[in-house]
Amino acid sequence: MAVGMLMDSIGVVIYGVGAIGSQIARLLLERGYRIVGAVDVDERKVERDLGELVGVGRIGVYVKRDIDEALSEAEARVAVHCTSSLLSQVYQQILELVGHGLNVISTCEELAYPHIVDAELAERIDSAAKDRGVRVLGTGVNPGFMMDTLVLTLTAVCQKVSRVYAARVIDASRRRLPFQRKIGVGLDPQSFVQKVQAGGMGHVGFRQSIHMVADTLGWNISEVREGLDPVIAEQPVESHGVRVDAGSVAGVKQWAVGVSDGREVIRLEMHAYVGAEDHDIIRIDAVPPINLEIRPGVHGDKATAAMIVNTIPLLLEAPPGLITMNRLPAIPHAATAWGVRR
Amino acid sequence: MAVGMLMDSIGVVIYGVGAIGSQIARLLLERGYRIVGAVDVDERKVERDLGELVGVGRIGVYVKRDIDEALSEAEARVAVHCTSSLLSQVYQQILELVGHGLNVISTCEELAYPHIVDAELAERIDSAAKDRGVRVLGTGVNPGFMMDTLVLTLTAVCQKVSRVYAARVIDASRRRLPFQRKIGVGLDPQSFVQKVQAGGMGHVGFRQSIHMVADTLGWNISEVREGLDPVIAEQPVESHGVRVDAGSVAGVKQWAVGVSDGREVIRLEMHAYVGAEDHDIIRIDAVPPINLEIRPGVHGDKATAAMIVNTIPLLLEAPPGLITMNRLPAIPHAATAWGVRR
Repeated sequence: MAVGMLMDSIGVVIYGVGAIGSQIARLLLERGYRIVGAVDVDERKVERDLGELVGVGRIGVYVKRDIDEALSEAEARVAVHCTSSLLSQVYQQILELVGHGLNVISTCEELAYPHIVDAELAERIDSAAKDRGVRVLGTGVNPGFMMDTLVLTLTAVCQKVSRVYAARVIDASRRRLPFQRKIGVGLDPQSFVQKVQAGGMGHVGFRQSIHMVADTLGWNISEVREGLDPVIAEQPVESHGVRVDAGSVAGVKQWAVGVSDGREVIRLEMHAYVGAEDHDIIRIDAVPPINLEIRPGVHGDKATAAMIVNTIPLLLEAPPGLITMNRLPAIPHAATAWGVRR
Repeated sequence: MAVGMLMDSIGVVIYGVGAIGSQIARLLLERGYRIVGAVDVDERKVERDLGELVGVGRIGVYVKRDIDEALSEAEARVAVHCTSSLLSQVYQQILELVGHGLNVISTCEELAYPHIVDAELAERIDSAAKDRGVRVLGTGVNPGFMMDTLVLTLTAVCQKVSRVYAARVIDASRRRLPFQRKIGVGLDPQSFVQKVQAGGMGHVGFRQSIHMVADTLGWNISEVREGLDPVIAEQPVESHGVRVDAGSVAGVKQWAVGVSDGREVIRLEMHAYVGAEDHDIIRIDAVPPINLEIRPGVHGDKATAAMIVNTIPLLLEAPPGLITMNRLPAIPHAATAWGVRR
């Protein structure tokens, strides 16, 4: 399918040149995609050469403040969107990109299954995309892969599925500083509680994965319960140069449960703390049962960049509209452009 | 996609009522499919009630000697074909089923990627299917899932893939007697060599998985090397009631390697012997690397039955012709009819 697609014929705009946007930009260039524009609101990035900014040397494409400016002298087919986790914060950006006739692939977690967040907004995005004949998809490693696409793929060999459990256990010391800050590494327990109450803590996307899996398997989720607790270091922990004192927060244990007919049918967990033994688990109670581990766990940032880039060719073959991973017209895979490196 | 498809509107014929065909028949009935006919050449099965034969009680469908007889008073849309591993032995059956306007889903291993076996035959099947507006697909747990579909799905989160290794380690004592016989359990080493020389030993399908993965990733396989060695019991082994004397054959270690540009890029192994520690392994050398284990290994027969039944709704949505798993228009999954058991 994707075989033979000419990467350099697909103009791409990077919308949001943060850590993930930069990784994606590098991978797109490696794969031979033609990046024709970039947008970021950070004044320190505006007018800088995108290639220099992401560490691969000048490419003659300059970061602009907005999409109109970025597209004033370039034609693009795809926008890679990496700004925020929340639908409420991105939907105007998405609609603007669609308005420019761009296919949008986004790391926005809530966009991975947006109608459960705001059905009306999801409908507006879907209509706008259909009007312009383009596709909009939110994906990444999680939501997008580990706790939904991969889980569903594994159920292909299951006769009966009664329960799904998936967990990501992440050694936070292997991840970026912003990730460590996000999970409260080094805070005292009281500050952690305040940070939780202030909002914005923890992983966004459990609900998306729960509903995507449930809808695809035909389960009716009546309730999603969620929780987030600190992991307190009992002794000083040091891992990959990150040190946490005894009594301080080493990270978080977060969970979400999908309930159907009064029964817990899906349980998702993310344990992210300094010193954790990094691995992924999927357990599917089924005939036959599936009891899977990946060690170390699939690296989130690298996997998200891969997922976005690998999915572009398949997205362009999907019917116009708002697409979700369980309705993509094929499995994404590490596509042809790489192959065996020569 | 498959959601809302009415299982009982899809008439199915079982072509080959052996161990796997029987499991599939039971699962189809559980899922609410309407089985309208069955075919088997075994005179002991002919004219018997299919439901009785597969152990679920009378269903009023009788096994017939051939497809003409089976369809003389019934209308079907799908044929589930489970007779042989070799394309040369099944292609006339497949063409006959297609000639009756049936969509065919088959456990024939070579049919999973048939053009590498006989391009002309594959072309004939494809043309015939297109002429009749039906689809033909070979699938199952292996080939069909563990060493190809699942491997490819996992590469979705990989930026660069340089090598794929997949192994199934099977405790042969947990499998059917015909499986044990096929891998030479209990033979003396000399009889094993004779059995290998006589042909028909070991797993068929490594080549299919190697080429499916390679073609999808854009790798050019110049050579496939294969080998099969006995596992000799050094001491008496007993597992699940199956006993092998010291010095006798406990099973096999079989392997196949795909070479590209002089380099081993894919290695597949199946170790099946009495007393083996049952598990599946997938290792993908990539950024990020994937190092996966499933313990115990995914049960072959149960998984194959699931794979066949779960794939039917998606197959019916595919464009007519010869389909392979890497070109199926969505990921198969344990579809809606089961859901949470009530």
